[in-house]
Order: sequence, then C-alpha cells, then structure tokens
Amino acid sequence: MRTVWLNGEFLPETEAHVSIFDRGLNFGQSVYEVSPVIDGHFCNWPYHQARLERSKALALIADDTDWPAVLGELIARNALNEGRVYLQLTGGEAADRGFPLPDPAIAATRIAFTQADALIANPVAGSGQRIVLRPDLRWQLRSAKTTQLLYAVMMKAEARGAGVDDVWLVEDGVVTEATSSNAHIIDARGVVVSHPVDSGVLPGVTRINVLEIARAMGLPVEERPFTPDELFAAREAFISGAGTLVLPVVEADGRPVGNGGPGVLTGEIRQRYIALLRAQ
Amino acid sequence: MRTVWLNGEFLPETEAHVSIFDRGLNFGQSVYEVSPVIDGHFCNWPYHQARLERSKALALIADDTDWPAVLGELIARNALNEGRVYLQLTGGEAADRGFPLPDPAIAATRIAFTQADALIANPVAGSGQRIVLRPDLRWQLRSAKTTQLLYAVMMKAEARGAGVDDVWLVEDGVVTEATSSNAHIIDARGVVVSHPVDSGVLPGVTRINVLEIARAMGLPVEERPFTPDELFAAREAFISGAGTLVLPVVEADGRPVGNGGPGVLTGEIRQRYIALLRAQ
Repeated sequence: MRTVWLNGEFLPETEAHVSIFDRGLNFGQSVYEVSPVIDGHFCNWPYHQARLERSKALALIADDTDWPAVLGELIARNALNEGRVYLQLTGGEAADRGFPLPDPAIAATRIAFTQADALIANPVAGSGQRIVLRPDLRWQLRSAKTTQLLYAVMMKAEARGAGVDDVWLVEDGVVTEATSSNAHIIDARGVVVSHPVDSGVLPGVTRINVLEIARAMGLPVEERPFTPDELFAAREAFISGAGTLVLPVVEADGRPVGNGGPGVLTGEIRQRYIALLRAQ
Repeated sequence: MRTVWLNGEFLPETEAHVSIFDRGLNFGQSVYEVSPVIDGHFCNWPYHQARLERSKALALIADDTDWPAVLGELIARNALNEGRVYLQLTGGEAADRGFPLPDPAIAATRIAFTQADALIANPVAGSGQRIVLRPDLRWQLRSAKTTQLLYAVMMKAEARGAGVDDVWLVEDGVVTEATSSNAHIIDARGVVVSHPVDSGVLPGVTRINVLEIARAMGLPVEERPFTPDELFAAREAFISGAGTLVLPVVEADGRPVGNGGPGVLTGEIRQRYIALLRAQ
C-alpha cells in the first residue's frame, strides 16, 4: 500500500480523506503539479515550482509548503524508482459551502502522492499514438495548472469511444493542446512548430526542455499555432508531458502522419530528454 | 451540528469525507444541484431532476439515487425550515489518479447537505445589488451544472475587491450570466430580456419560473442576449437563482440602473415567485 501525504501527515493511501466541504471538491478551486521520477529522483523542480506559484496566484490559494522535502520523503517511503509525483493544493476545508473566499482565510488542503510507472520503457514510444481532432471548449485560463479538467476527462472518453489514444483540441482553426499534454509538429522543412505558451495552452515543463533539445539538435523552432492541415502535412508529430515525456503521434483523424510510423527526430528528442532527466 | 448525507449514510458534518483520489477532487468530474427550501419543503424538484440527468450525462456520471427521499430526510433530521438543499455527484473514488474513466466503472460519490438561510427576509431584496462587468472566460459547456466553478470563485473575489456585490459576465459583446445566477433586464418598453438557455448559460430553474411569472404579469419576454449598453439603459435589472430567488440590481459599473433603486416590477416578480414556492 502506498504512503501518501496530506496536510503534513504521511498516511496509508486508504486513510487520506478530505471534507465534503473542501473547496477543491465543491468549486474546483484547486491547482496541481506532476513531476517525472527517474532513478528515484523527481525532476525539473524549479520549473514546477515557478508554475505552481503562478497557478496558486490565479486560483487565490496561499501556501508555503516545502514541497521538495515532502516529495523526496514520499519517494523514499514508497521506494519509488520510476514514475511520477503528484501534488495538489485546494482552497481548503470550509465550514460551509459558499462561493466567496472564507474570511478570515482558511488553510489550503495539501495533497501529494507517488505513482509507479514505466516512463522510459513505454511501448507507445515504439508504436506511436493515434489521435482525433475535437473542438477545444475549455476555459480561457489554461496557462494555470488547475483541476478544471472535466473537459479533458470527457475527451479521453471521446478518444476511447473513437478507438484511438487521445484527442488533440482545435480552437479558432488551430491546434491548442492534447487533452493532457502539449502538442507539436515537425514540418516538411524540419521545423518544430509549437503553440506559444499564452493563455491558450499550459506552459509545459517538458515542452521547455523539448524545445531546447530541438534547438540543440539544429532544428529551427517556431512558437506559433499550427492548423489541422499543417498537422496532416507534417513530417512528424509528437506530444510532451510529465507522465509521457515525449511520445510520437502517427495518425490524426484516420490519416497517417508523415510515413505513418514514429518519427526519427521525435525518437531522438525523446532519448535526449531521458538522458537529460537522468543527468539531473 | 448538521447531519449530512454521504453515499447512503447520514453522518455528522465533521465526519463526512471523500478520498484524495476522488475524481471530483482530482479532475472536477462532478455535477450538483441546489434547491430552495421554504416552509420545510424543497421546491421545483422535477426541474432539478431533469437538469441533473443532463449534467450527469455530460460529465459521464451514472447513478440512480432516490434524491427526493434523501433530501426530505435530510430536511427532517436538520429541522430545516428555510434555506437550501445541496447535492453533488462525482465520478467516484478511483483506486489511483488517471484521466480515463475507470474500467470497470466505479460508483459515483454522492453528497447532500442542508444550509439554513433567510431566503425570504433577505435584506438585499430591499437594497439591491451593485455589480461590475468582467469578461466571461469560462468553458463553453455552461448549460450543465458542473463544479467547473473556479472562475466563479475568482469573480466573487473580484467583486469583493471592487467593493460591489457581484460580477456580471460579458462574452462577445453580450451579458451571459452573473457569477452564480441568471441575469435579466427589463427595458424601457417594459420587456423582460433574458439570455437564451443555449450552451452559454445555465438553464436556471428559477429563471423558468420567473419568465412564466413575467408573462403572467403581462410583460413581454424576449429570450435573447443583451448588451452592456442595454443594461445601462434598462429600467430594471435583476438576478434569479436557487439561493437568492429574485434580487434587484441597482448599479452596474458605477452607473445607476433605472432610477438607482430596486425595481418595482422586480419586486412584484419576487413576491409572486415566493408565493409560488409556498404553494408547492
């Protein structure tokens, strides 16, 4: 049984509960971060910390938990070698339900747990994802990592119903993101094209690393939105995220992407990213 | 101490908890309803039931709780005369966090509680609300009553910061809703104008009753969006909702609405609605 962490206490996972009056539960007033764990170490913390601070500010959540200490101890107690650490902060346990922020302020609810997973030996790296395109109907404040995730849940179910792996979202004629990762293409010229990290997409920590790696490989990078037609005409397509690292996309709306197999450049980016994580 | 209801059990409110792996908490996969309680009876149930079914379908939540029995017993156990009953359904307690729906399916988490409140003797009915206009950045599936409510929480805080009672939301040049209620005006001709209940706004149960009452009063009703300029030029403005019933709005963005006092027609609609609730 996993040991999880809740409001300062390490607990068995079956004993970690929050009130039915938690503002994360009643209002989705809640933010989170997910960091990959490789060789027993969580990665990219400064980026996650910076984004968490921005998310907390948007969601009106104040807290000063020493997360590296919590996450390090959780990984040790669970003897986690490879997988993820997840942390979530909510607006706290209110005395009663009400939209206005409680006055005086209440403490945030703080949750963290580990998830064992094979990030490196992921078979999808060799087979690639098949995706379909659907409208992006999410809220407009996607640069914060909040639990406003019902649409993502709905689109994961939509993908399953369509017999594919995931959905890429389209708004105003351009691709924004995959349901829970950033979406990128490499066009016929070998240019990596990635939606800019404005309010329309999450500023992915993996994305930052991936674009640096692409530049180091000599690939030009254009941070601009791309259209479905550009995706259909791309040489390669891939996603980036904390749980998936870098994974190739080989089919979109039933059409092969590139030659229909995992992209060679995508594979190289993935391998370099894994090496970077291992070197941390 | 209140008695609340959780997954089939009546519990003291301090003992009602859900797992940190509840899909309502991790993903906002959750829907709810709020019904007014007057003279010890919850109101408008058929409308709430119908909307709840639509919300559940959208949020991929299956459940067949006999809510009238639960809500009636909760009201009795808490000796509630006036206030609200709240119910919430989530995607359930998962074994671990993951976007895809658990397979096999898991049971929904089911929550209900009462809130005592003076709905009828509400002083704001005599003084009116002051509101400011802000952009509507919520997701596009607002006809379902889900807990994707972080933006509403943010806008309640925005209103407090601006020294007013609430925010009315504006999208594509028209008013959609207030943060947690439907928004309406009565124009200079005496026409009640109310945003149509497409995906842009919640199909409010109180709104249904209010528009029927307006028609019975001989007021023409136009279900179409209205602009901020129409609000500024309106004779009266008001909100409708389960917790507020009908309340006048007397100021918008610092400008008086109508003569700057609670509207006479709004007051009549409110009184007729209270009489309707009492007659149920």
